[in-house]
Amino acid sequence: MTSLPIDPDLIAAHNAARTRTLAEDYDALGHRLARRGVDIATVTAQVAAFTVAVPSWGVGTGGTRFARFPGLGEPRGIAEKLDDCAVIQQLGRATPTVSLHIPWDAAPPGELRAQAEALGLGFDAMNSNTFQDHPGDLDHPLSYKFGSLSHVDPAVRAQAVAHNVACIRLGEALGSKALTVWIGDGANFPGQSHMGRAFERYLASMQEIYAALPEGWRLFSEHKMYEPAFYATVVQDWGTSLLTAQALGPKAACLVDLGHHAPNVNIEMIVSRLAHAGKLGGFHFNDSKYGDDDLDAGSIDPFRLFLVFNELVDLGESGDAPTYMIDQSHNVTDPIESLIRSADEIRRAYAQALLVDRAALGGYQEDNDALMASETLKAAFRTDVGSILARARMDAGGAIDPIAAYRESGYRAKVAAERPAVRGGGGGIV
Amino acid sequence: MTSLPIDPDLIAAHNAARTRTLAEDYDALGHRLARRGVDIATVTAQVAAFTVAVPSWGVGTGGTRFARFPGLGEPRGIAEKLDDCAVIQQLGRATPTVSLHIPWDAAPPGELRAQAEALGLGFDAMNSNTFQDHPGDLDHPLSYKFGSLSHVDPAVRAQAVAHNVACIRLGEALGSKALTVWIGDGANFPGQSHMGRAFERYLASMQEIYAALPEGWRLFSEHKMYEPAFYATVVQDWGTSLLTAQALGPKAACLVDLGHHAPNVNIEMIVSRLAHAGKLGGFHFNDSKYGDDDLDAGSIDPFRLFLVFNELVDLGESGDAPTYMIDQSHNVTDPIESLIRSADEIRRAYAQALLVDRAALGGYQEDNDALMASETLKAAFRTDVGSILARARMDAGGAIDPIAAYRESGYRAKVAAERPAVRGGGGGIV
Amino acid sequence: MTSLPIDPDLIAAHNAARTRTLAEDYDALGHRLARRGVDIATVTAQVAAFTVAVPSWGVGTGGTRFARFPGLGEPRGIAEKLDDCAVIQQLGRATPTVSLHIPWDAAPPGELRAQAEALGLGFDAMNSNTFQDHPGDLDHPLSYKFGSLSHVDPAVRAQAVAHNVACIRLGEALGSKALTVWIGDGANFPGQSHMGRAFERYLASMQEIYAALPEGWRLFSEHKMYEPAFYATVVQDWGTSLLTAQALGPKAACLVDLGHHAPNVNIEMIVSRLAHAGKLGGFHFNDSKYGDDDLDAGSIDPFRLFLVFNELVDLGESGDAPTYMIDQSHNVTDPIESLIRSADEIRRAYAQALLVDRAALGGYQEDNDALMASETLKAAFRTDVGSILARARMDAGGAIDPIAAYRESGYRAKVAAERPAVRGGGGGIV
Amino acid sequence: MTSLPIDPDLIAAHNAARTRTLAEDYDALGHRLARRGVDIATVTAQVAAFTVAVPSWGVGTGGTRFARFPGLGEPRGIAEKLDDCAVIQQLGRATPTVSLHIPWDAAPPGELRAQAEALGLGFDAMNSNTFQDHPGDLDHPLSYKFGSLSHVDPAVRAQAVAHNVACIRLGEALGSKALTVWIGDGANFPGQSHMGRAFERYLASMQEIYAALPEGWRLFSEHKMYEPAFYATVVQDWGTSLLTAQALGPKAACLVDLGHHAPNVNIEMIVSRLAHAGKLGGFHFNDSKYGDDDLDAGSIDPFRLFLVFNELVDLGESGDAPTYMIDQSHNVTDPIESLIRSADEIRRAYAQALLVDRAALGGYQEDNDALMASETLKAAFRTDVGSILARARMDAGGAIDPIAAYRESGYRAKVAAERPAVRGGGGGIV
Repeated sequence: MTSLPIDPDLIAAHNAARTRTLAEDYDALGHRLARRGVDIATVTAQVAAFTVAVPSWGVGTGGTRFARFPGLGEPRGIAEKLDDCAVIQQLGRATPTVSLHIPWDAAPPGELRAQAEALGLGFDAMNSNTFQDHPGDLDHPLSYKFGSLSHVDPAVRAQAVAHNVACIRLGEALGSKALTVWIGDGANFPGQSHMGRAFERYLASMQEIYAALPEGWRLFSEHKMYEPAFYATVVQDWGTSLLTAQALGPKAACLVDLGHHAPNVNIEMIVSRLAHAGKLGGFHFNDSKYGDDDLDAGSIDPFRLFLVFNELVDLGESGDAPTYMIDQSHNVTDPIESLIRSADEIRRAYAQALLVDRAALGGYQEDNDALMASETLKAAFRTDVGSILARARMDAGGAIDPIAAYRESGYRAKVAAERPAVRGGGGGIV
Repeated sequence: MTSLPIDPDLIAAHNAARTRTLAEDYDALGHRLARRGVDIATVTAQVAAFTVAVPSWGVGTGGTRFARFPGLGEPRGIAEKLDDCAVIQQLGRATPTVSLHIPWDAAPPGELRAQAEALGLGFDAMNSNTFQDHPGDLDHPLSYKFGSLSHVDPAVRAQAVAHNVACIRLGEALGSKALTVWIGDGANFPGQSHMGRAFERYLASMQEIYAALPEGWRLFSEHKMYEPAFYATVVQDWGTSLLTAQALGPKAACLVDLGHHAPNVNIEMIVSRLAHAGKLGGFHFNDSKYGDDDLDAGSIDPFRLFLVFNELVDLGESGDAPTYMIDQSHNVTDPIESLIRSADEIRRAYAQALLVDRAALGGYQEDNDALMASETLKAAFRTDVGSILARARMDAGGAIDPIAAYRESGYRAKVAAERPAVRGGGGGIV
Repeated sequence: MTSLPIDPDLIAAHNAARTRTLAEDYDALGHRLARRGVDIATVTAQVAAFTVAVPSWGVGTGGTRFARFPGLGEPRGIAEKLDDCAVIQQLGRATPTVSLHIPWDAAPPGELRAQAEALGLGFDAMNSNTFQDHPGDLDHPLSYKFGSLSHVDPAVRAQAVAHNVACIRLGEALGSKALTVWIGDGANFPGQSHMGRAFERYLASMQEIYAALPEGWRLFSEHKMYEPAFYATVVQDWGTSLLTAQALGPKAACLVDLGHHAPNVNIEMIVSRLAHAGKLGGFHFNDSKYGDDDLDAGSIDPFRLFLVFNELVDLGESGDAPTYMIDQSHNVTDPIESLIRSADEIRRAYAQALLVDRAALGGYQEDNDALMASETLKAAFRTDVGSILARARMDAGGAIDPIAAYRESGYRAKVAAERPAVRGGGGGIV
Repeated sequence: MTSLPIDPDLIAAHNAARTRTLAEDYDALGHRLARRGVDIATVTAQVAAFTVAVPSWGVGTGGTRFARFPGLGEPRGIAEKLDDCAVIQQLGRATPTVSLHIPWDAAPPGELRAQAEALGLGFDAMNSNTFQDHPGDLDHPLSYKFGSLSHVDPAVRAQAVAHNVACIRLGEALGSKALTVWIGDGANFPGQSHMGRAFERYLASMQEIYAALPEGWRLFSEHKMYEPAFYATVVQDWGTSLLTAQALGPKAACLVDLGHHAPNVNIEMIVSRLAHAGKLGGFHFNDSKYGDDDLDAGSIDPFRLFLVFNELVDLGESGDAPTYMIDQSHNVTDPIESLIRSADEIRRAYAQALLVDRAALGGYQEDNDALMASETLKAAFRTDVGSILARARMDAGGAIDPIAAYRESGYRAKVAAERPAVRGGGGGIV
């Protein structure tokens, strides 16, 4: 039997006070949608079936190179992180899986699995870490200062490959089905690295990792334009990620992090192109205004998030569905709150994309009626689908207003009393 | 026998007045290079062998959407454009070929060929134009307002394909060996165009063009992030261009225009990646600070131009060498002067790249000595190779200071007297 | 008595078919807003009072430097442009004024005024044009190729000043109260222009124009990062525009065009800073993804438009209210349709900004509750205020669905029959 | 008497082996410059007089939010940092002053002063730190998580003001003459902070700091577009910095960090505008390709650095000269080496700017001869002034090739033996 962190009675009371208003809004929206020939119950069921993984590291307070300002009750290890993830899922009901980062979350797989099961959680894609040194970790005697999978030294490459294989093995024991590889390899100065040879070394290392994949697994390569490398990054854009996935084989695909692109880039078009190439593997959701800001999904440009989902809904369920994960850095908010609302925003974009009148849209596209095509998307985006999201949540046992319910629960104060306070100084990530 | 536009005596007199100073500088540089173990004569010969095509449209004054301000003596057709191109080649000796734009330059091939031969010119890649309507042109009854090779209407696609095939046929008659395809197809609004289907239509059209390629020809796809389409462009980046070239076959490759990228993008890395994929086909050189500014090569960021050539020299002559062309818009300068100096700047970057001590660089890369690797490139870039460029030019019959010689020649005043003045109003290109 | 271009009976019939549905939606929204303590009638009245000027040049089809593809029934002069503007106002009821561009719209003021009055239109800010040459215009014998108000030649500066003064005089006769000055002056190459002296010459010219302002007039300086100048623009950002307005005096203020900024810039923050400095003069609304794309307002990033209005509503009516104008280039849509919906989008953003719970927001800001502050803005933005916009329109005599009503009216076909067709070729603007 | 860290005999031997080659190059360059009417001795003297401050924190290895990879012999405190700074100055002779960061470098002023004097160093502008918490520091009981000088809580603002005043007091004791204020205050989400009120609070705090300035001091406000705040930064650009300096008074001016701007921004133009406004206070030199990459000056875009110095030389010595400082993060190089070469690159750009033929340039500008104006700048930039830099260094007692001499000295190995090794893990800055 499960031992969920939030008292179900609290959720029930929370919902009871809001059920009538929700019903009012839901019915009014249902009425409007029916006028357009859309059945709100069908949309609600689709939304309820849509889930997104949370990253284990996301429940700690993030930081910048300048500073990290921890919050109260920071989780001290993977066990406490799973507890926090369970809160997110219990209240929001959109995030039944957790994505682990190794070695941060390394632990006996049996313990991890048992705790997750008790909390009603599963495990999504595994994440390796070769962008940091791991002092004291016997599996990492060599430094990644000058790269990992593309390092000039074969010994460092071998260490990084072995670490990725170990992540796969742990993932197997946990029921995961994929490994996401993001490396920080690159150069800060022209000339520092030979761009062609570094890529060839990277591909050779990835081929070794690929060879270790169990049946039914997928390997995701994740590109990023810059940071931590500031002149050239080995896997800098989707073109290079595509070349990688092509070189590896059918189990390999590309993962798109919304914040890893050059300014002004049209991300939804990359989604379309990767799908065309049969290499759209997954997403890391977040939002950004400048660089890889890792802000809460939909908080800066919600229409862009909608346009990504518009492509995804349009693509439908042909072939392997991509993997969805949140990847954010919560520097000024309670991470649990940010993750609850980010999952909600992602579902919102999905729900709005479901409402696009695709028959009408296709007709306008055939007629080159740019204005009405544009308005057709906007009409879906403008629809306030909040009551659909709340209904799906409530029906699944979550809270109508999950942030409010979380605050009512006193969870943060409770863990703050149990977990020692940390005072931040220098910069960094969890 | 040839009838070159500039009096050879003028060039001879020009050079006579500068020979001693050039020899001084050339010898001093030769002395310095010899200290590094570099033979200046070898470098000079490599530079002399390096050429870049000029675009026929580049000899007219360009403009923006706001205005075009024509200069004096604007060429009125391809015959006068070839005359101007001959001036550039005669004085600069770096640009023996011209790239035509059809239908702007459409003319009987026999006439074109005869004039070019008389002027000592050849023909580089052909360029089709389906980003404008051609009123009065019987081959273009349909409008490209909503696209060309990716248009929803098969009739428009067929017209655009036929035009490209006609460009190939004309090119065959002229001795050209390649077709460059750049289209403006895209969308100004989310929803206007179905991104996936538009790309599929584009690929199908390109396959028809590819099928019409003669033996020994190449087909270049050229990407561009935006403009004229302002939300989504069908061939928006090198990833999409790569997918295109992969879908077409071995005669197809990608063409990189330096101004067609998102802000901050590392272009030399794209060069390296396309070479890795065996799909680096050619270049359109220019410089830019904001968007596709089409400024004179090397005028804004000369180190970036050097870094591109550093990759090219490093790649060496493996496989098909890429095609080099200038593609600029000369809005405020005499186009002949801008093209002379741009070709010179391109050769300068090439010469500097030849001076990179690659053995030392490779050693620093192996040692992760980022600082000395960076300094090794900078040392080559800092070398003032002007006397090498001048010597190569002079030895080939050109002018030591080609801009000065051009001004001394009075060519612009002469053609201004022959060609009617135009006063600019609205915007546009030639 | 007026002679409006669209038959009022058509509008009445159009509305009759939609009144019940609108009432349903309006009442449902009113009910929801009442729950939040907001009176929908008050908001509707505020929206009805909010207007934005349309640019006379916006009713013609725009283009890029590559091409212009005219639509059917392009207006041939200011009289036909005013007719088209009257359609926009009659159906949308948000755009009672027109902003003229001189010399494009030069005409006897009596005629302009009479026609405008007959159509129920007034005149907003005047716009001068010194970024193009005006061949055949006796007031413009000198070329603006190398600048206008900052030109090195005092005669060109004097010509440009005189033209601006003439715009003021015409504006006086028309009832306008402001002059907007945007110049294309700048440089394409480092060194081409002395940045400091060019700015000093610009300021001196602006001081002459300022001296010619009538009582009650305002002078707006409009900045733009680049285009048509591609290395340096004299009035490149709000900092330089601020220095200008400070140097001129109390009648001078800054005008913000949403598309004239560097990538990633936070525009709403510029609005806040200019308001702090007492120099927020006005807006040119449009949307963009890359550069000065001049797309329909709210079509690319509607949340950004909302955030600008969030600042404006927060600033309230302290001091002179800024001037609002649309400034777009309609390349692929019917310009009348784009202007109707853009005005609607601007009102939508305004309406949503009115719904922000500012007391709650202020409290969250005091508490550093970043998440709830963010959600407070999002809650307002997510509200589908379409029925408020439609109600305000209908009550003022406009159409519930103005685009549909426009299409029903057959206006475009009617003027296409009267106005000769134009087939586009080279690039440019109207 | 001084006790410099590098054995003078080593430097002498180093130079002896290179004197003849240097003389050869210097004479050849002198000959070429004489042909242009330039006296190389004069330029050498100007270069020798040009100095730039090094930041105390720059001698430690920097990092990103992802990781920090310390080098060997990391300095453990301000005393060891000053030793390292002395190496930079002894070999490079371009950096006689150090800029301190408080509280990182807090120490008894007498000790600091004595050590600096012994090492031949002085103190440049002081830097306060309110972008991090300082656990255990009794002067900083309150957290800066949500801001400092603009915080909503007056107590936090008072703490931050007091810290800045303490920095001034310490600076007075050290002989410094300026305080540079950079804050990380801002917001990660729309709504989190009231943009107008935050700026007003910032101004009020700055006014308190300004009031504490001694006679002869200057206060620099430093803007930055983003990071650590990712939606809105209180002092985001030069416009806001200008408003600040204007509000404070004549002792206040703006400081330009080359990496703190939006993509594509023309920085040299900002230099020109701030000089026009009388508010150009100082510089933080570094280079960048993407964001605030803090790479070695001149390593990415050396022409941009030259163009900044072209403005500075053009401005001449009118009024207070700006303060020059390096501000970089050395993640993959030996910080001492990076600082030596960065100072050299800065001097290189200065020397090249001195070589611009300003009379010719002015003439071309008057003639609108864009091409020759551009070439005039390029001619100066292309000049390899390395021998001038080396000569100035050698004459002042430094090394002809300071990086080589540093490596010959074995300094790093020596301090690595004395200073305990650190193994990096999480991210951050020194």
